[in-house]
Amino acid sequence: MNKLPSILVSATFLCSVSFAKATDYFVGNVNALGEVAKSVKAGDTITFASGDWKDVEIKLPDLPGTAEEPITVRALAPGETIITGASNFRFSGQYVVVKDFVFRDLTEVKDAVQFRSDSKTLAEHCRMTECVFDQPTLYKPKGLSTHWLAIYGAHNRVDHCYLGGKSNLGTTLVVRVNEGAGHHRIDHNHFGPRPELGENGGETIRVGTSDVSESDSFTIVEENYFESCDGEVEIISNKSCENIYRRNVFDRCAGSLTLRHGHRCLVEKNLFLGHGKPNTGGVRVIGKDHVVRNNYFEGLRGTSSRATLSLYCGIKDSPLNGYAPVQNARILHNTVIDCDSSLEIGAGEKPGRRIYPKDCLIGGNLFSTTNREIMRTGPSLATIRFVDNASASRNPPHTKDKPIQCRQVTVNWMRDSNGMMRPGISEDFRASARSHISDDIDGDTRPTFAAIGCDEPGASGAAFPTKDTVGPQWK
Amino acid sequence: MNKLPSILVSATFLCSVSFAKATDYFVGNVNALGEVAKSVKAGDTITFASGDWKDVEIKLPDLPGTAEEPITVRALAPGETIITGASNFRFSGQYVVVKDFVFRDLTEVKDAVQFRSDSKTLAEHCRMTECVFDQPTLYKPKGLSTHWLAIYGAHNRVDHCYLGGKSNLGTTLVVRVNEGAGHHRIDHNHFGPRPELGENGGETIRVGTSDVSESDSFTIVEENYFESCDGEVEIISNKSCENIYRRNVFDRCAGSLTLRHGHRCLVEKNLFLGHGKPNTGGVRVIGKDHVVRNNYFEGLRGTSSRATLSLYCGIKDSPLNGYAPVQNARILHNTVIDCDSSLEIGAGEKPGRRIYPKDCLIGGNLFSTTNREIMRTGPSLATIRFVDNASASRNPPHTKDKPIQCRQVTVNWMRDSNGMMRPGISEDFRASARSHISDDIDGDTRPTFAAIGCDEPGASGAAFPTKDTVGPQWK
Repeated sequence: MNKLPSILVSATFLCSVSFAKATDYFVGNVNALGEVAKSVKAGDTITFASGDWKDVEIKLPDLPGTAEEPITVRALAPGETIITGASNFRFSGQYVVVKDFVFRDLTEVKDAVQFRSDSKTLAEHCRMTECVFDQPTLYKPKGLSTHWLAIYGAHNRVDHCYLGGKSNLGTTLVVRVNEGAGHHRIDHNHFGPRPELGENGGETIRVGTSDVSESDSFTIVEENYFESCDGEVEIISNKSCENIYRRNVFDRCAGSLTLRHGHRCLVEKNLFLGHGKPNTGGVRVIGKDHVVRNNYFEGLRGTSSRATLSLYCGIKDSPLNGYAPVQNARILHNTVIDCDSSLEIGAGEKPGRRIYPKDCLIGGNLFSTTNREIMRTGPSLATIRFVDNASASRNPPHTKDKPIQCRQVTVNWMRDSNGMMRPGISEDFRASARSHISDDIDGDTRPTFAAIGCDEPGASGAAFPTKDTVGPQWK
Repeated sequence: MNKLPSILVSATFLCSVSFAKATDYFVGNVNALGEVAKSVKAGDTITFASGDWKDVEIKLPDLPGTAEEPITVRALAPGETIITGASNFRFSGQYVVVKDFVFRDLTEVKDAVQFRSDSKTLAEHCRMTECVFDQPTLYKPKGLSTHWLAIYGAHNRVDHCYLGGKSNLGTTLVVRVNEGAGHHRIDHNHFGPRPELGENGGETIRVGTSDVSESDSFTIVEENYFESCDGEVEIISNKSCENIYRRNVFDRCAGSLTLRHGHRCLVEKNLFLGHGKPNTGGVRVIGKDHVVRNNYFEGLRGTSSRATLSLYCGIKDSPLNGYAPVQNARILHNTVIDCDSSLEIGAGEKPGRRIYPKDCLIGGNLFSTTNREIMRTGPSLATIRFVDNASASRNPPHTKDKPIQCRQVTVNWMRDSNGMMRPGISEDFRASARSHISDDIDGDTRPTFAAIGCDEPGASGAAFPTKDTVGPQWK
């Protein structure tokens, strides 16, 4: 254990000052870590030496930060401490901020970075920020499943990180769900390209697992940029309850935000931009009481499980790892432009999976396609209520079996600086006296008669994330 | 039938001009009505003579207004055409505006004013505005049940009216619900005092009936002022699905906004001000998937079915007119100050009515009482999730059976010009990374970490209705 060692002073004067009683522990190798972890107190900093840290086990248990005086665990210089190889990095405690590390070419270890130090000692109110997880060269050993980052505990945050290039089996970032914990926030990250895996296990984010999928996680995934996350059909795999997916951009991702298990999730104000790339999808809904509102979808080419709005077929008395029937889904005020399959109700039908979505409300959505059918459905629409939807397509909406109520409108789209198409101000189509929602995709307040689609014409709010506004600032 | 008759010209020049091709029909007595109704076209006006119209049958069927050119049916001078006694007033058609009438001391007729001309001919896109319904003297013949105003059809509106003083059996204003219709709006009305009836049937508003309560009505009741509406335990009786009750003020009303039947209703941004009057209540929840959020409750003295937040007991395999079990209720970010019974989960228990609320989320609420218990519950809280609630009470929250998670906080309340108490700016208690809702009671945007209670500190939006801002402007 070194306190303000000479190596640090020689490396940089700026980082080495000890303020008041706070101490900056410098760590040159893993042997010192045990002592540092025992000595560190609220307000202290642990600084890792620059260079490659290969095949190391880093463990910082029970760090006692506080809200006022968090403990910082950082690289000496942003991006110059590189954890690599068969390494793992675990920490736990309260109010710990981990920042400026690079995790590169991680191999072999199942959960490389963990918000816990052992199975019973979890992180709370901890944060990982300004870190990079990448894999510049293809790495795909047969049968090896790993996760780069696993969030445990409660009230943790991962923000302003870059995670891209994972090519082997296993979800990039997983949230482990326990009853009574959760409340995590994953925001302002750049999820870079992930190549197609060719099998299940190529998700970019998974929140929960089927066995705990009836538990609340209260996790928020917001303001992230997903770029060509093509690992598999599920870009994000939701497997718990009460999560929010909000204001993310999905740019050319060959998959869907999939509510695979769990109930009562909210998907709102996201941009899904397919640019005509094959297999690009939107939101797939499975389970009860999900809300999908105020989203924008354009140029998506997926169908069935990758349809823009895919309400999937369920299994009767489904086991936890099966397909819970869709019930009471609320698909409200979304805008869908030039998508191959805008809305599928009862996608994924096959023998043994034939419970059709039930008691759903499809309201205030605006569809626009040139020559594709808007909707494909299974045989049973009896309990699906269509209210105040509009179509700006040449072909009126239809299904094989019955027409759906859908207002026919004409729109002259104009593209804005976020990349979204918005209707001209004179094309102001209003829903009837039923505002399903309080605000629009920009956060603008909705009046009693809300505009159909995701956008309330007029002043718009904050810009959406771009590759430049997410990820580490030092990168 | 008179076209621009001399009586009108002598009464006023201002109202008698016929613009372009529009005609102003003057009606001096009911005999002329049939001919007028047949002749009237889009853009025309039908003007009723001043004076008392006693024991009359007024019927205006199938009036062919359009969105651009509505048909106006009005009193010659606001408030001087008085329909009274055993009268009724029925109209139907499209885009008709009825305005400036007084309906006073209505007797005997079951539905005095109707948005239909007969059982098959209903009003659509019609509006009743700037009218008064009152009863200056007590009228309570035994067994006689009447409604003053019945809304049928679709897309109709009742606004800026005064309705007060009904003392006999029967709901003041009823909305008749049919599958596929609805979408009404009831707004900016002043519901004046209604004395205690002493039995069921003294509601001020009822939306639907038990037999159609599984149908959507999509009715919005917003920006109304309810003053001492004491008729019975239900100020408003919701008996259909998908209705919104928003930004109303309930001033000293000895009852509750009751979600009696139906599912998926939203109760948000209302002020319930009891001022310590006995039996004043808040919101009673029965049924599935209701949301009660961003409301403000103060000084309420009701308990059980009149508790501030009353989640009622249900009946197993309930018939439509029974008590559907509460399921998936979301009670979010309400503020409850100085109420006798802030939250009752499983109120109304009795033999045969013992299905306790299930799968509910109680989140982000702020409770403040001096010396009363916050919560009373039945035996089963297993599936009720308490998240991020806070108590500014001296006594920590408790139940008979188990403690509930509730943060203890200190608040110095400040009363604002709306009559609401708001926490001082330094008392900013935040919910964890889970914003349940997009905005607050004022319409202010909620950040990721939302303030506990109904109010996001800082700039506030539009003022709430007062007696001066609702009802007819001429009154």
